[in-house]
Amino acid sequence: MTIESSKQESAGRIRLGMVGGGQGAFIGAVHRIAARIDGQFDLVAGALSSDPDRAKASAAELGLARDRSYGSFEEMAKAEAARPDGIEVVAIVTPNHMHAPAAKAFLEAGIHVICDKPMTISVEEAKDLVALVEKSGKLFVLTHNYTGYPMIRQARAMVAAGDLGDIRLVQAEYPQDWLTEAAERSGSKQAEWRTDPKRSGAGGAIGDIGTHAYNLAAFVSGLETDELLAQLSTFVEGRVLDDDVQILLRYKGGARGMLWASQVAVGNENGLKLRIYGSKGGLEWTQADPNYLWFTRFGEPKQLITRAGAGAGAAAARVSRVPSGHPEGYLEGFATIYAEAARAIRAARDGGEPDAEVIYPTVQDGLAGMQFIEAAVASSNAGNVWTKVG
Amino acid sequence: MTIESSKQESAGRIRLGMVGGGQGAFIGAVHRIAARIDGQFDLVAGALSSDPDRAKASAAELGLARDRSYGSFEEMAKAEAARPDGIEVVAIVTPNHMHAPAAKAFLEAGIHVICDKPMTISVEEAKDLVALVEKSGKLFVLTHNYTGYPMIRQARAMVAAGDLGDIRLVQAEYPQDWLTEAAERSGSKQAEWRTDPKRSGAGGAIGDIGTHAYNLAAFVSGLETDELLAQLSTFVEGRVLDDDVQILLRYKGGARGMLWASQVAVGNENGLKLRIYGSKGGLEWTQADPNYLWFTRFGEPKQLITRAGAGAGAAAARVSRVPSGHPEGYLEGFATIYAEAARAIRAARDGGEPDAEVIYPTVQDGLAGMQFIEAAVASSNAGNVWTKVG
Amino acid sequence: MTIESSKQESAGRIRLGMVGGGQGAFIGAVHRIAARIDGQFDLVAGALSSDPDRAKASAAELGLARDRSYGSFEEMAKAEAARPDGIEVVAIVTPNHMHAPAAKAFLEAGIHVICDKPMTISVEEAKDLVALVEKSGKLFVLTHNYTGYPMIRQARAMVAAGDLGDIRLVQAEYPQDWLTEAAERSGSKQAEWRTDPKRSGAGGAIGDIGTHAYNLAAFVSGLETDELLAQLSTFVEGRVLDDDVQILLRYKGGARGMLWASQVAVGNENGLKLRIYGSKGGLEWTQADPNYLWFTRFGEPKQLITRAGAGAGAAAARVSRVPSGHPEGYLEGFATIYAEAARAIRAARDGGEPDAEVIYPTVQDGLAGMQFIEAAVASSNAGNVWTKVG
Amino acid sequence: MTIESSKQESAGRIRLGMVGGGQGAFIGAVHRIAARIDGQFDLVAGALSSDPDRAKASAAELGLARDRSYGSFEEMAKAEAARPDGIEVVAIVTPNHMHAPAAKAFLEAGIHVICDKPMTISVEEAKDLVALVEKSGKLFVLTHNYTGYPMIRQARAMVAAGDLGDIRLVQAEYPQDWLTEAAERSGSKQAEWRTDPKRSGAGGAIGDIGTHAYNLAAFVSGLETDELLAQLSTFVEGRVLDDDVQILLRYKGGARGMLWASQVAVGNENGLKLRIYGSKGGLEWTQADPNYLWFTRFGEPKQLITRAGAGAGAAAARVSRVPSGHPEGYLEGFATIYAEAARAIRAARDGGEPDAEVIYPTVQDGLAGMQFIEAAVASSNAGNVWTKVG
Repeated sequence: MTIESSKQESAGRIRLGMVGGGQGAFIGAVHRIAARIDGQFDLVAGALSSDPDRAKASAAELGLARDRSYGSFEEMAKAEAARPDGIEVVAIVTPNHMHAPAAKAFLEAGIHVICDKPMTISVEEAKDLVALVEKSGKLFVLTHNYTGYPMIRQARAMVAAGDLGDIRLVQAEYPQDWLTEAAERSGSKQAEWRTDPKRSGAGGAIGDIGTHAYNLAAFVSGLETDELLAQLSTFVEGRVLDDDVQILLRYKGGARGMLWASQVAVGNENGLKLRIYGSKGGLEWTQADPNYLWFTRFGEPKQLITRAGAGAGAAAARVSRVPSGHPEGYLEGFATIYAEAARAIRAARDGGEPDAEVIYPTVQDGLAGMQFIEAAVASSNAGNVWTKVG
Repeated sequence: MTIESSKQESAGRIRLGMVGGGQGAFIGAVHRIAARIDGQFDLVAGALSSDPDRAKASAAELGLARDRSYGSFEEMAKAEAARPDGIEVVAIVTPNHMHAPAAKAFLEAGIHVICDKPMTISVEEAKDLVALVEKSGKLFVLTHNYTGYPMIRQARAMVAAGDLGDIRLVQAEYPQDWLTEAAERSGSKQAEWRTDPKRSGAGGAIGDIGTHAYNLAAFVSGLETDELLAQLSTFVEGRVLDDDVQILLRYKGGARGMLWASQVAVGNENGLKLRIYGSKGGLEWTQADPNYLWFTRFGEPKQLITRAGAGAGAAAARVSRVPSGHPEGYLEGFATIYAEAARAIRAARDGGEPDAEVIYPTVQDGLAGMQFIEAAVASSNAGNVWTKVG
Repeated sequence: MTIESSKQESAGRIRLGMVGGGQGAFIGAVHRIAARIDGQFDLVAGALSSDPDRAKASAAELGLARDRSYGSFEEMAKAEAARPDGIEVVAIVTPNHMHAPAAKAFLEAGIHVICDKPMTISVEEAKDLVALVEKSGKLFVLTHNYTGYPMIRQARAMVAAGDLGDIRLVQAEYPQDWLTEAAERSGSKQAEWRTDPKRSGAGGAIGDIGTHAYNLAAFVSGLETDELLAQLSTFVEGRVLDDDVQILLRYKGGARGMLWASQVAVGNENGLKLRIYGSKGGLEWTQADPNYLWFTRFGEPKQLITRAGAGAGAAAARVSRVPSGHPEGYLEGFATIYAEAARAIRAARDGGEPDAEVIYPTVQDGLAGMQFIEAAVASSNAGNVWTKVG
Repeated sequence: MTIESSKQESAGRIRLGMVGGGQGAFIGAVHRIAARIDGQFDLVAGALSSDPDRAKASAAELGLARDRSYGSFEEMAKAEAARPDGIEVVAIVTPNHMHAPAAKAFLEAGIHVICDKPMTISVEEAKDLVALVEKSGKLFVLTHNYTGYPMIRQARAMVAAGDLGDIRLVQAEYPQDWLTEAAERSGSKQAEWRTDPKRSGAGGAIGDIGTHAYNLAAFVSGLETDELLAQLSTFVEGRVLDDDVQILLRYKGGARGMLWASQVAVGNENGLKLRIYGSKGGLEWTQADPNYLWFTRFGEPKQLITRAGAGAGAAAARVSRVPSGHPEGYLEGFATIYAEAARAIRAARDGGEPDAEVIYPTVQDGLAGMQFIEAAVASSNAGNVWTKVG
């Protein structure tokens, strides 16, 4: 297997803007690193904070030209669309409730969008966005970043190739522990907005991390959900949104799943784990150790497939940067979403489509995520009953 | 910490009989090794098989006196009760449907019983057995053998001591893969009776391994179940009983749980795993690596507590035989059930009670297991609805 | 794969005596459990302690007949040889300096010997014992217990079958930490005699655990040592014998090895680990997790071969008692030495040889161990120079 | 603990050139990603290949201005020094034999140097370079990239703080398997120059990976080597340089070490591992799982310290970019070397020194590496005798 790191680089960078991500924000810095890793983007404009002073200071720190640091996304969309050297794509990294309005502004201005998840704060808003993306003809890339891990690509390819036979079971989980106590009342900005329905929507843990687990299960298994039954819990007193989610899933075609996401499971940092079992084989993968994929063919010894190592195929090689045994991590997986976006944007420059092998989460995945959250909240509120998804 | 292996041994062995466990049976051999490990029992009588030739051959192989190899458990109970050197306790290691009748015969003959799980094939039968045990004044020890692992004892002690704070979440799972294909139609005796409702009762995977996970969760957490919601599945065509079980649990006091047991999860051998999370800490334990207990106090680094190592306390030391770093396994855990039974039997000889620290699963635990199975089957049949347990 | 646990049991137990192993001794209790696990032996006589009171109390605790608890091994050898129901085999579990004298007494009395390691306290003594064993025609079984682990048997079979190609490298290590501080001066009996040259011989860590690593490397690799270069260190002030050992090995045929044993490596309990690499494949095994064997064929994914699981062959199945996924441990591995001894003793009863598949460490392995210790001490004393072994 | 990712970014990028690293080269692409991750550098010039066509094509792919793609490093050093917008620092990523000549050219032109390791092909050349660096007043940063891992920084800080007590033992290893067969004769460019003494110098495995293990051991332990004893082996027929290295180390102050590096250990990808033991505690770290640091205080349970998690301190936080549980990998560790270089370069712009907390491997470390290689080769050639280092 040859890794193809050189293919990640190319001349002629794409002009990128950012909404949100000012000083102190976690995910904005991650997006910027992800955009830089493969050298495909130049960050040239931003509306980095709703607080004007912070916006300005953040822009200076990042070396943005003064006239391209904007006070609002509306202003930015308008101004950038008017410039001959305006941004080609914007990254939206705000709290959830701002995703849709910002995306709308840029799509309408003819600018591609890279957007954080969950995509919106309601299914309705998500559907509007789907319609708008279709109408605009612009690209919409949702940063379900875990789909960028090479071994997740490998797993997806193996399922698609039939290595597991007919899929029977999906076990997805994403335990964390950072909300074990009331961090939202002791000064954590992250905790504040994540637990605030106004900024996060109807889902707490389910929106923040449950959607990641759900998306990843679908991405790898290729299965479509039929219905779910959910129990959302809030363990910390005074908290409004859920901090623990237990879900049973029925997929179309008969496969069944369990999904657990928690922000109060002490000892778990970002314990995203996916296990998929079929009539012929089984796969296991853990985000904290992302370069390993465990594969068992029924009746044979378990195999450890490593990123870029023996047993890993083309789907993993495409998105690997260093040889096996040298770990790639979260930022490289995130960068792959940007690299795929870059390929799609370059193709779109010429009015074309990217190669078939280019994969990224779309506005449809974003809608599916919102339908998942909505169905889960509805199921839980109705006393944990089976609820159709979508 | 000092291990107390010498205390496991003592003069004056207890006379033991066995029902079931003839040649070719798996669990009978396990019980015999477990009984031998600490040198507390002598196997002196048996009704080892319902097939007379196999019974005889098995008895000869085990060195039983010819007149103490019986054709039926009824005959054995009667004859042994009449002998001055008759057995003091019998181990019942037959398929499930024989447990209750055999136990009844020996209890009524004044002989203590060690019995495999699940205890009976119905709640009704289980309740009768509870009544009979009470009436008989004899001991009844159920071999939920995983409760004998030192680190499970350690975990239980830590929960009881409040190291985890208030328990919020219990995640229990027991995946296997040996029934991924229709082994019951290709000559596996184990598979035949495990998938046959006449011999196994109403539960397949749930009775065979789901009860183990359920019992262990209760043993460690100290929680009592209020209600459950279950989805039982059968993935292999032509199979009657469930081969996969997904359950949501509501414990009294507000804790919630998920339980998954499967016999079609390719790549899992005996993947029993228990995770418990509270307001202050979390615990994780895996049966395949039983000498390790992972403990995290919220806000501190995860600790690896090892059997008989630093951090392990008296509850683990009581049931450890070798120093830390030398792994003890399944048979030692099983042997601890026998060692505890021996202590109880010796105490009972003098009409007394064993020390308070002696712990073994009782007829009440057996009843709880049957109530769990019955509730799960009922919930599943009713369309996966919340169902009271017990 | 079928495990063959029933074959471990058989009628007609072998009469066993024990020298050493009285109350408070660690390894004596281990030998007794090992002897009981497969039900092949009855412990009927003993000279359990050089302290008469402790000998008596220990014998009572173990249920020995009063007239078969002896004050010395000389007396015991004589008396048991004279009884028609005298012991057939003796287990010698004393400190090292007593091994040879005791073994001599029993061999000369026509009684088979099972003996702890290191076998003697000098090469000279070892050579005398080799000669005596040959002359006596009696069996001599050395409890290099790690050779009883099923996955070690599997590894040995794979090397012998050529699965690794030509062996190039052997990496053996056995770190512990229990002598990090001067435990011999704070009341640990174990530490006292292990660090005392009068009772342990010229080697500290090298004799206690280095020999285990060395023996295991030879057992699995099938290689014979040509020469070694050793550096023995003593890190704890006031200690006389080595507590850390670093060795380079040259095997006949060109393979090379490193061996590290330490009793001051904080965080290691019994970290015996063996890695063997050849021109076609590599193997890795760790004592603390003994049911796993990692195997890589060059250019293929790493495989996890589990005891009694897919990929494990007949050599492991012969000595397995429970299905894969249910861990076997230290005591089962130890018991396998006893089970193999039982097979050899039964064969010898009829003047025959055991089946070719019966494997146990012999007096020759004991001599090899002493030659290893002697060469290592000599090399170290001479300034760490290459020294022929044997 | 707060991670400080935002501090990694800053306005005003540093102008970077590159020597080597054209199409098909592995390490050049790694350096470029590392330079991009924190957004501190702009690659603006290069002499990317000694093959003019490849140099040109590579430069075009990377978007270099045509007039800043040079045919030789000599030409480049001269031209860039003459430009007002010339490079401030050059990254030298050629085979080893070119490091010193290229470094010399740039230092003499007044340009800072970032250089791959091993630094030179002889101690003599290394000493000249040390002198030149001192004379030039320019910065010289050696990419011993593993020193950039946050948990390595954490480990170093813990040792320095005395958490391990007096260091007694260092166990360092770096097994790989990619040279198990004669890859240098089947078209691998990497294998060709790595096994060619003209381009690699006197060391094969020892220069490529042994130096990494050696450097890391010194970086974390703070120990200085007194003498070593080495055995270099070549297992693959026809190969000239060593493909396996076994070394005993004596550190000043009495600590002892073992170092193993191999390129023929089947099943190892990049198995760099470091274990350090002292009178009070022990540390273990593995490059393939770099976000975990295992720490044991003698007599307490082992702790798992995670990057940016509980238990990790300021030294790790300084160089972390994402929260714990989200793995950082090889590229982030490499990027930290660049980030530290950037800090030093910015400080040097003003004629100042970077903050005391800024750490990077220097020309002195490069000299130490060459002294290690030279001593090891000499020791091995002299029949594996103790040889002074430095």
